[in-house]
Parts: sequence; C-alpha cells; structure tokens
Amino acid sequence: MGHREFEHHEQRILEEIMRLRRDVRGNRFLNTPLEEQVLDQILHAGLLAPSVGFSQPWRIIDIRNRETKQGVAKIFAEENTEAAKQFEDQRRQQYQQLKLEGILEAPVNLAVFYQHSDEAILGQTSMPVVGEYSTVCAIQNMWLMARALNVGMGWVSILDRKKMEALLGASRHQKFVAYLCLGYVDKFYDQPELEMRGWEQRKRIEELIFRDSFSSQGSDTCT
Amino acid sequence: MGHREFEHHEQRILEEIMRLRRDVRGNRFLNTPLEEQVLDQILHAGLLAPSVGFSQPWRIIDIRNRETKQGVAKIFAEENTEAAKQFEDQRRQQYQQLKLEGILEAPVNLAVFYQHSDEAILGQTSMPVVGEYSTVCAIQNMWLMARALNVGMGWVSILDRKKMEALLGASRHQKFVAYLCLGYVDKFYDQPELEMRGWEQRKRIEELIFRDSFSSQGSDTCT
Repeated sequence: MGHREFEHHEQRILEEIMRLRRDVRGNRFLNTPLEEQVLDQILHAGLLAPSVGFSQPWRIIDIRNRETKQGVAKIFAEENTEAAKQFEDQRRQQYQQLKLEGILEAPVNLAVFYQHSDEAILGQTSMPVVGEYSTVCAIQNMWLMARALNVGMGWVSILDRKKMEALLGASRHQKFVAYLCLGYVDKFYDQPELEMRGWEQRKRIEELIFRDSFSSQGSDTCT
Repeated sequence: MGHREFEHHEQRILEEIMRLRRDVRGNRFLNTPLEEQVLDQILHAGLLAPSVGFSQPWRIIDIRNRETKQGVAKIFAEENTEAAKQFEDQRRQQYQQLKLEGILEAPVNLAVFYQHSDEAILGQTSMPVVGEYSTVCAIQNMWLMARALNVGMGWVSILDRKKMEALLGASRHQKFVAYLCLGYVDKFYDQPELEMRGWEQRKRIEELIFRDSFSSQGSDTCT
C-alpha cells in the first residue's frame, strides 16, 4: 500500500478524544496561562484542515488584549439579552442561569474569519458557502487538538457578525465565523453540559440516519 | 482533576491522523465493499461532534442505490461543465483534466443535511448559520475517523443545492450541506492533491494568523 495504516488502538484514541471533547464556558476555565507552544499545536491542527480547492480561507486573530476581550463581552451581553427573549417562562429562567461564554475568563481567545476571494475557487463555484465550511473544519480540528492537549475550548456564537467585524478591523472580504475561548480547566464534564442540565436530549440514531432518500424512512416529521 | 488526561503519544497520533487525511476522488477508490461495522464507526464519530445548543441538527442519508448515485453524478456533470467556464486558458485545461469526485466509484455515499428547527435554539439566535456549521463539525469528525480506519473520503461540493434536495426528497426544513464519497483506496497521497499538482500552494502562517486585530499586522492585502 505504501501509506500509513492506522491500527485499532489509534482509532480508539481518536474516538476517545472525540467523545470527551466538551464545549467549555467561563465557570470551568482556570487562570493558568496557556503555553505558546501548546497554542501553536492547536493552531497547527487548524491549518491541517481540508479546504475547498486548497484555498485555506481561514484567518485567525489571536486575542490577548483585555480591552478587545471587553469589547467582545459587551457585544455578547447585548445579543444575549435579546436571545433570552426568544425563550418562554421556565425555559427563559433556565436560559438566564446558564453561563454561555468564557470571554474574560479564558486566557486566549481566537476569532475565526472566512477570507473571501474575488477569483473563482475550484469546488466553490456551485455552493459559495463551502468556503465558510472549510473554516469550520479548521475549528473542529483545533477543538479536538485542544482536548487532546487537555485544554478546554468553548465556541461563542451569541455575537453580532457586523459588530465583530467592525471591532476587529475586518475588511469587506473577511467574514466573521466563530469566537473561541481557550484555556486550562478544573474539569471536563462527562456529558455535554446542556444534556447534563436537561436542556436538550441526545437524539436516537433512527432520527438522524436515513437510507437512500428521506422518503425511504418515515421518521422525518417535517416532511 | 478527575477527567481523562491525554498524553504526548496520543496527541501525536491525532496530529498524524489530521496530517495524513486526504480528499479522495474516484481515481483512488477500490471496489472493496465497506464493512457495515466500519461505516458505523464513521457515523458514530459524526454524532459525537459539537452542535449549537446540543441541537444535533445533522441528518445523513446513506446512499447505496446505483440509480440515486447516477442522479447525483448527473447533477455533478451539469454543474462541473459550468464551473470549468469560470477558469481561463491553461487553468481551464488543467481544471478539465482533474478528477473531482468519486460518486460512482465509491461503495458508500453520504448526503449530509442541516435540519432547521422552527423553535429557537440556544446559541443560534444571533447567527442562524451556526446550525449548518454544526453539521460541518460532524463531517470533519467523520473525515478524521475514516482516515484512522484507513478509509478514503472525498467531499463533492460541485452540486446544485436545490437539485440535490429534490433528488433526495428533502423537506423545506432540510438543507443540503455536503456529499461525501467513502471507500477503501489504493493509496493516500502524502500531500493534498491540488498542492501536488501545482494548482494551489500552501500559505505561510503569517498570512493566516493575526494578533489582537487585523489592523495590527500589515499582511491583509484586501484591507
């Protein structure tokens, strides 16, 4: 074959990293600084991600500046106040009690952008959004590598795209995709926090996997 | 600490899986069938991905039917003829010589959809697109697990969204995200194929990573 064949114990390690990866919020981050070399390994994992037409359209801002973080925290607070209104009664109360970000608690924040190209990109001609999707592949690689390095990561999505682009000096070619908080943690939960707290349940595989077409199975209630 | 601490050799295995993962096209797939248990491990990895508000918005169609694959291949052919026109002269010639999919060669095809919810989803209130991003995290998990299982995977993106949704019986709540071809391969290339063939070069880290804001560094030529 000539290529590297991975073995059973290596597949198991990958599965374990995926299974034990968590979304980490401010109530779990420690003050411990993140070593530059550890952050470099996380960024390196991002740069190994697949990208449409090998376009590598990811642009990552490594944010350490307290003032910038405070600007992001302000945008989050504004958006989160509006977000809470979309839930009713008990659900709203529960929403308001959840800690949903770790912007100021995490030593390192990464803002991830998609860089648009004016030239045609191979593979991106029918579905322009796949360029953004490539940046998400880079995020997932970073998330897994962070967990393997015993570093917590949280994805903050309750942010206004335009305000984030203005705050971070993005050009009109740079689209905000994600805001990531990274740092050591006191512990990783065994389960997703929202599952643990009863906000949402894990779906059965029959609801998620179909055969040959959606209509071949009766489980899509929205059809 | 109480949680599983990963060790140096485990981080190295993850890095190696990421580094040796390739986008595989029809010229590399073998006829060998994919064992159900191997496919299950790949799907399982997808279901371990993070999702906004633990919404698990991914819906995956496992396609084995030859007729359905031929329908997808036809959509690809139509889109690819149009795509070639976006490149000029030598670049167009090179484009037309590239094999860009493995729809009929791969034993298993997976069509990945994002399932939209009419109810508010925690974390998805400011940026609705993050639901689609969650499905992309699942795709990247499957891609890495496939490589760890020595299975090739290719992402076909030169497809018309609406035609794919009609072909596969999607409801108005189900949005087509990606089409994946999976199977054993004769070999994995050492480098991305488009890098190897001189279509695109790897970018320098200075072009991709910024500090505190885009304006803090002079390397963004689009500003």
